[in-house]
Amino acid sequence: MTLLGAIEAGGTKFICAVGHANGEIKERISIPTTTPEETMPDVLAFFQKHQVEAIGIGSFGPIDVDKKSKTYGNITTTPKLPWKDYPLLEEVRKTFSIPVGFNTDVNAAALGEAILGAAKGLDSCLYITIGTGIGAGAYIQGELLQGLTHPEMGHILVRRHPQDTYKGRCPYHGDCLEGLASGPAIEARWGTSAKNLSDKEEVWDMEGYYIAQALMQYILILSPKKIILGGGVMNQSQVFTSIHKYLGDFLNGYLVFPELSSEMEDYIVKPGLGDHAGITGALLLAERALDESKKYMMK
Amino acid sequence: MTLLGAIEAGGTKFICAVGHANGEIKERISIPTTTPEETMPDVLAFFQKHQVEAIGIGSFGPIDVDKKSKTYGNITTTPKLPWKDYPLLEEVRKTFSIPVGFNTDVNAAALGEAILGAAKGLDSCLYITIGTGIGAGAYIQGELLQGLTHPEMGHILVRRHPQDTYKGRCPYHGDCLEGLASGPAIEARWGTSAKNLSDKEEVWDMEGYYIAQALMQYILILSPKKIILGGGVMNQSQVFTSIHKYLGDFLNGYLVFPELSSEMEDYIVKPGLGDHAGITGALLLAERALDESKKYMMK
Repeated sequence: MTLLGAIEAGGTKFICAVGHANGEIKERISIPTTTPEETMPDVLAFFQKHQVEAIGIGSFGPIDVDKKSKTYGNITTTPKLPWKDYPLLEEVRKTFSIPVGFNTDVNAAALGEAILGAAKGLDSCLYITIGTGIGAGAYIQGELLQGLTHPEMGHILVRRHPQDTYKGRCPYHGDCLEGLASGPAIEARWGTSAKNLSDKEEVWDMEGYYIAQALMQYILILSPKKIILGGGVMNQSQVFTSIHKYLGDFLNGYLVFPELSSEMEDYIVKPGLGDHAGITGALLLAERALDESKKYMMK
Repeated sequence: MTLLGAIEAGGTKFICAVGHANGEIKERISIPTTTPEETMPDVLAFFQKHQVEAIGIGSFGPIDVDKKSKTYGNITTTPKLPWKDYPLLEEVRKTFSIPVGFNTDVNAAALGEAILGAAKGLDSCLYITIGTGIGAGAYIQGELLQGLTHPEMGHILVRRHPQDTYKGRCPYHGDCLEGLASGPAIEARWGTSAKNLSDKEEVWDMEGYYIAQALMQYILILSPKKIILGGGVMNQSQVFTSIHKYLGDFLNGYLVFPELSSEMEDYIVKPGLGDHAGITGALLLAERALDESKKYMMK
C-alpha cells in the first residue's frame, strides 16, 4: 500500500505522520511550533526517515490556497510573527521531489471526516473547530470549498445573547462569533477556563446560543449534509443540548428543513475520527496530490 | 447552432425562450403564473413550435433538487397552493423526450452571470435577488451549489439596525434578512413602496445596513469571487453606496480580505445580463443537461 506523509501544522504543535489513505497511521510525532528555523528541520527530518510517495499539509492560517498565486502555499498574515509570510509548501517541496497537497487545517479535517469519519459516504459536510479560535472547513459536492480565499467562518456576525455583557475579544470585529464564543472568550467572560465551568448551566446555554446561530447561517448558506463540531470547547458535551434547542428555535420548523428539528442529534455530531480528523485529512490530501500528479503525467 | 429551450418559472410569470448557449435569444414569451392547469399548457405549447434539443428550467422554490429523491423536480412546500408538490420537471419530460435541466431560479441566474455576465471568466460567483423575497444562488468551483437541499440564504439572521422598530414579516423567523429587507418589508416599514422612497436617505441607509451584513456572512462562509445583486429593490442604485460603506465597517480591514475595502465597487456589482440573468442561465442549464446526456450515452 502506498506510504503517505501528513503534516497537521497547528499554532502550538506540528503533528507529522506517515500512513495510508485508509487512515491507518504507522508512526507519528509532535513537534512544538516555535520558529520556522527550529520547527521545520525536525519536520523535514521525520519524513526523510520514511519512503513516502506524497505529503499532505493541513495548516493553520490564514494561508494562500490559490494555485495561481505567486505566494501559493505561504502562511500569510498570521499574528504568529515568525511564521508571517512563511513559504511552508515551498520549504517542503525543496526537500522532497514528490507531490505535496496543501490546504487549511479545517479543510483537511473536513476531508478526513467526509471520507473516513462521521460523514463517510456523504458528498458534503462541514467541520467546525471551537477552541482557541473558531474556524470551519467545508467539503461540498466532493470538493473542499475555496473561492476568493479559504472561508473564514469563525468571524461571522451573531446577535448578542440578551444576558451577555461581555464586549468580545476579536481584534477586528469585537463581538463576532469568535470574539464571543471561542475558548478565550469564555474564559474572559466567566473568569476561568471552560474546563472549570462544566457545571455552570448558564455558560453552556449562552455558548449554545451563539453556536446555534452560526449553524443556522451555515445551513442556510451551504446546506451541508452533516455538521461536525470539534475543538477543545466541544469537549464540554453538554453544549450540544443547548445547540440543538436553540437551533430548533431559530429555524422554527422552517419549511425547507422540517426534518432537522427531529433529527438534529444525527445531523450535528462529534468528529467520527476524534482528535485525528486533521492528520487523517492531511493523509488524504497527500493521496489527492498523488492522484492529481498521476493524471497530469498521463496527459 | 444547437437550439435550446429555457423556462424561468417565477411566482408571477413563466418566461419561456428558445435560443443558444451563447445567450442569444430567438424568441420569448411571458405566461402568467396562475394554476398548473392554466399555465402549463401554454408553456408546453410554446416549445412544441420549436425544435429544441434540450430544455433548462430555473424555478421558484422551494424545489426538490436531489436527483436521487422520488420527488426530484417537484415544487415542494410553496405558499402558492396550486403549485404545492407540483411535479414541474416530470410534466415537461412527459411531453418532450429530450434532456431537461432543473435548478432554482437564483442558481440559474448565478450560472448565467458566471458564464456570460458580470462574473464571466471566474469559477465562482454569488447571485442575490432582493425583491418580493430574498434568495441567492451560488456558483462555486464551477458547480452550482447544492447540499442537503438548495441554499436558502435569504433567511439568515441579522442584527437589527439600532433605529429599526419594524418587527419583520417572515412567517418563520420574523426579523431574519428577508423579514427585514425584502421589498414588502420596506413597504410595510415606511408605509409606501420602495420606488416612492428613492429620495429618503434613511431608507437606503438601513437597507444597506442589512444587505451588507448578509454579504459579510456570505463572504466569510463562501468566499465568492464576485457578488451580483439583482431584483426589484436593487433598482434603487443608491443602496450600493450604503452597502459598500457598511460592509467596509463590518469587515474592518479584516486581514484575509484587505483588498475588498478598496475594490468593493468591482466586487459587488449589478447583473451583467440585467433582467436576463435567469432566462440566460436556464439556457445554460439546458446546455449542461444536453452535455450530460451525451456523456451518459457514450458510456
